[in-house]
Amino acid sequence: MSEAALLDQLIQALRCLPGVGPKTAQRMAFHLLERDREGGRRLSETLLAAIQRVGHCEQCRNFSETPLCTLCASPRRDRALLCVVESPADVSAIEQSADYRGLYFVLMGRMSPLDGIRPEDIGIDRLAERLDRGEVQEVILATGTTVEGEATAHYIAQIAHRRNLRATRIAHGVPLGGELGYVDGGTLSHAIAARREL
Amino acid sequence: MSEAALLDQLIQALRCLPGVGPKTAQRMAFHLLERDREGGRRLSETLLAAIQRVGHCEQCRNFSETPLCTLCASPRRDRALLCVVESPADVSAIEQSADYRGLYFVLMGRMSPLDGIRPEDIGIDRLAERLDRGEVQEVILATGTTVEGEATAHYIAQIAHRRNLRATRIAHGVPLGGELGYVDGGTLSHAIAARREL
Repeated sequence: MSEAALLDQLIQALRCLPGVGPKTAQRMAFHLLERDREGGRRLSETLLAAIQRVGHCEQCRNFSETPLCTLCASPRRDRALLCVVESPADVSAIEQSADYRGLYFVLMGRMSPLDGIRPEDIGIDRLAERLDRGEVQEVILATGTTVEGEATAHYIAQIAHRRNLRATRIAHGVPLGGELGYVDGGTLSHAIAARREL
Repeated sequence: MSEAALLDQLIQALRCLPGVGPKTAQRMAFHLLERDREGGRRLSETLLAAIQRVGHCEQCRNFSETPLCTLCASPRRDRALLCVVESPADVSAIEQSADYRGLYFVLMGRMSPLDGIRPEDIGIDRLAERLDRGEVQEVILATGTTVEGEATAHYIAQIAHRRNLRATRIAHGVPLGGELGYVDGGTLSHAIAARREL
């Protein structure tokens, strides 16, 4: 059975990718072998290099090949602003769209007592140390709107307040250009409750 | 920008997988780096090994690590039956479900004059040579029901008939347990036109 084995191993290995079941894995394996061996070779090499060399920035915990990531090392970013997010994907999203010029802190998760995820598991001790250094003046909380995300935001806000720093939460409400009829009820209730004076 | 580069390269490389766009590629890259480096390492190694070592069986054209694939080499298969399919995925499907005990011939495509795919591009010359050897007694045509698949089936049937071999087409119709209300019109018309005497 050695000839079937390697192909089966590849199909099995592809299933470590999120959202990839047996049928998709088979389709991917056949596609790579039949039509794109060059792309497959590049993927194999890049994946191994990334796994070996991409670690975490020692300051913001985002992915980085160097001890300090490009954002943290950049002299053009505003060190007084610190945006706290749950994941590297959130940093990408903000960097791609917004004109935010401050720095980030990536929790790599959110506090969740039920799952046994404590503040120190998401680096809040390191965040507190960073706030102690006195550079940061405002902590912008951009964690998710789940119960855990909100709890994490409030926990960090308390840490900031204890050091007499501003803690702000990003605005949640109806998206720009969003039609009210297509916005979910929870968002709409929040948008009305959090209305602002004009 | 070297620290962002490797992660961006990985996201880019993942897009060679079928059905993976920029968002999915980013999710996959973050997942591998954050949660499953072991799986990613295994994927990288298996992918490279498969690309280097998996070729095609010289007899049936299916994927194989050896010159002759396990199915073609097996003494337990019936050499008088030859099932012609379009892709390795079709072989997997038949092997997983049916109790077919014959051999296969994998076209790795179908004839398509409009796309410039000629009979020799899908190995029909090699198939004809194999039929000449006299082992095969029946050619079972299991190509798709597209115009190209049907044309390919008829072309191969002619080759078989010229050698006085049986050529059969797999049955198409309402799937077992399928409710008529949920079957598409084309299948239903075919099922009625191809009805059999009881």
